Amino acid sequence: MSGAMQPLAAEAIAGKVAAGARLIRWLEDGDPRGRAALRDLYPHTGRAHLIGITGPPGAGKSTLVDALVAEERQRGRRVGVIAVDPSSPFSGGAILGDRLRMQRHAADEGVFIRSMGSRGQLGGLSRATFDAVLVLDAMGYDRVIVETMGVGQDELDIVGLAHSTVIVNVPGLGDEIQAIKAGLMEAGDIFVVNKADRDGADQTLRQLELMLHLRTRHPSGDDWQPPLLAVVSTRGEGIAALVDALDHHASHLHDSGGFEARLGSRSHHLFLGLLRDGAARRLMEQALDQPEIAALVEAVRSRRIDPYSAADTLVARIHLQP
Amino acid sequence: MSGAMQPLAAEAIAGKVAAGARLIRWLEDGDPRGRAALRDLYPHTGRAHLIGITGPPGAGKSTLVDALVAEERQRGRRVGVIAVDPSSPFSGGAILGDRLRMQRHAADEGVFIRSMGSRGQLGGLSRATFDAVLVLDAMGYDRVIVETMGVGQDELDIVGLAHSTVIVNVPGLGDEIQAIKAGLMEAGDIFVVNKADRDGADQTLRQLELMLHLRTRHPSGDDWQPPLLAVVSTRGEGIAALVDALDHHASHLHDSGGFEARLGSRSHHLFLGLLRDGAARRLMEQALDQPEIAALVEAVRSRRIDPYSAADTLVARIHLQP
Repeated sequence: MSGAMQPLAAEAIAGKVAAGARLIRWLEDGDPRGRAALRDLYPHTGRAHLIGITGPPGAGKSTLVDALVAEERQRGRRVGVIAVDPSSPFSGGAILGDRLRMQRHAADEGVFIRSMGSRGQLGGLSRATFDAVLVLDAMGYDRVIVETMGVGQDELDIVGLAHSTVIVNVPGLGDEIQAIKAGLMEAGDIFVVNKADRDGADQTLRQLELMLHLRTRHPSGDDWQPPLLAVVSTRGEGIAALVDALDHHASHLHDSGGFEARLGSRSHHLFLGLLRDGAARRLMEQALDQPEIAALVEAVRSRRIDPYSAADTLVARIHLQP
Repeated sequence: MSGAMQPLAAEAIAGKVAAGARLIRWLEDGDPRGRAALRDLYPHTGRAHLIGITGPPGAGKSTLVDALVAEERQRGRRVGVIAVDPSSPFSGGAILGDRLRMQRHAADEGVFIRSMGSRGQLGGLSRATFDAVLVLDAMGYDRVIVETMGVGQDELDIVGLAHSTVIVNVPGLGDEIQAIKAGLMEAGDIFVVNKADRDGADQTLRQLELMLHLRTRHPSGDDWQPPLLAVVSTRGEGIAALVDALDHHASHLHDSGGFEARLGSRSHHLFLGLLRDGAARRLMEQALDQPEIAALVEAVRSRRIDPYSAADTLVARIHLQP
């Protein structure tokens, strides 16, 4: 693939914040210039340590991330943050407490914070988050933190893209919320009990310790033992230990080949998603030219044919030209 | 498509609970017999009134659904319930309070309750829920209630499949949780404040009233005015009014053509999802036979080529034979 680089891509690679922000906006809007720029950015990615932070609503994730950013900055690292809120129709940093957080770090050029809502993304929220992570990676941020709410398939996918996943818990949440942990237990590389100065913190720590003990081995056969940390984000307690644990995990991944392996499976996953969407789009385009297929699609809508048979009929006609 | 009907499909259409449960299990497991049976069931679907119930964790949805089931039963209707919990690795009614709920209605043949977790479904949780709804519809349940947590794209998709969507709120939840409403405000046909005997209920009702006032018109141009109801599920207060509102909405949909329209767009949506997955599967199968493409896939994994270019290369070769 030759040709001049997308000018905005060049600016983003040079670390220009405005260029990165505009690029992410293009990607969210499905602007074809965004896709073209991603191609140019891609060779400049693969360096950032991607950290996923997840946990139930009310776990204090925003405050934790805020404290984490401050500690990483003290250690001289540039940090990008993507706060994912699938329930929000807003994006671009407009949601809830994010304005406040952005104010605190607004004067710091080493920090980039961006919120992603669920509206307007082609291919779902996880795709848009993948894309934004690539942009921040190419912009040269040393750490890219993705904060999600820890529920839903999209969010499990997002967790899957991180090098290091931090699961945040708090004392005293109800049963319905605690169940979230079940699905995430195996995805965690580091476990945190936030608000550890609250009543019931010891009990929550003990429960987690037990669950970690019962935890099945990581699917990749990785022999990492996930640490369990008590943190009080509002006072910064335990935050240095958390960053130490993240650094330790990063070294572990580099030594074991896990860093490259996770990058590779992320690329593969992204490729399959793109293939899926691209194939469906191309098929529908070609179908429009064939009246017989347009009739099939209409028969599905009016329920004269079942969607299973109709899809099979179309799929059987797909051929990949050599 | 001719041939004998799948025996289990015939039993499900006859309303046999064990057959329906086994069928849903097949569909969850991706057993090809499940897909074959769905084809047989499909002509028997389209009659049930599909009700989506959604809201944040802690809104008391399970108790609300329980009370709703009791009221619908009093009115002589058979009710199917699908409780969706994307955070749970379990399915089949094993999660949390569901065992309790099933006990209460266990002796009642007019009620079918089923939980769906997020593991093991091909095509995501929304696909599995679509499938299960079709099974319950074909089994002759008059009302099929889908209960979801109201976060994540999968769950928004699930809401999209209902004829009537009930948004459940409660007084006194934090900001983070309240934000969930923003994304769902336009999807709601009926709004409920549960636990309306709690402090702050009046304020929550007033806020919702204001939001409903500001609400943009339904995309379909529907002129339905969503009612706002105060409910105390644990005491059954307001439940009869909720069922009245649901019945009223059902009549409205039948009169306005909305019932058929929502069925049609659901079929179309299901078809597109099946096409997407089927196309990707077929492409990967064909790709395995072409060493050059296998090499491309490998180059993506080792990051020697970017996934965007690789996907475009493959997509450009797709042809639909006439």
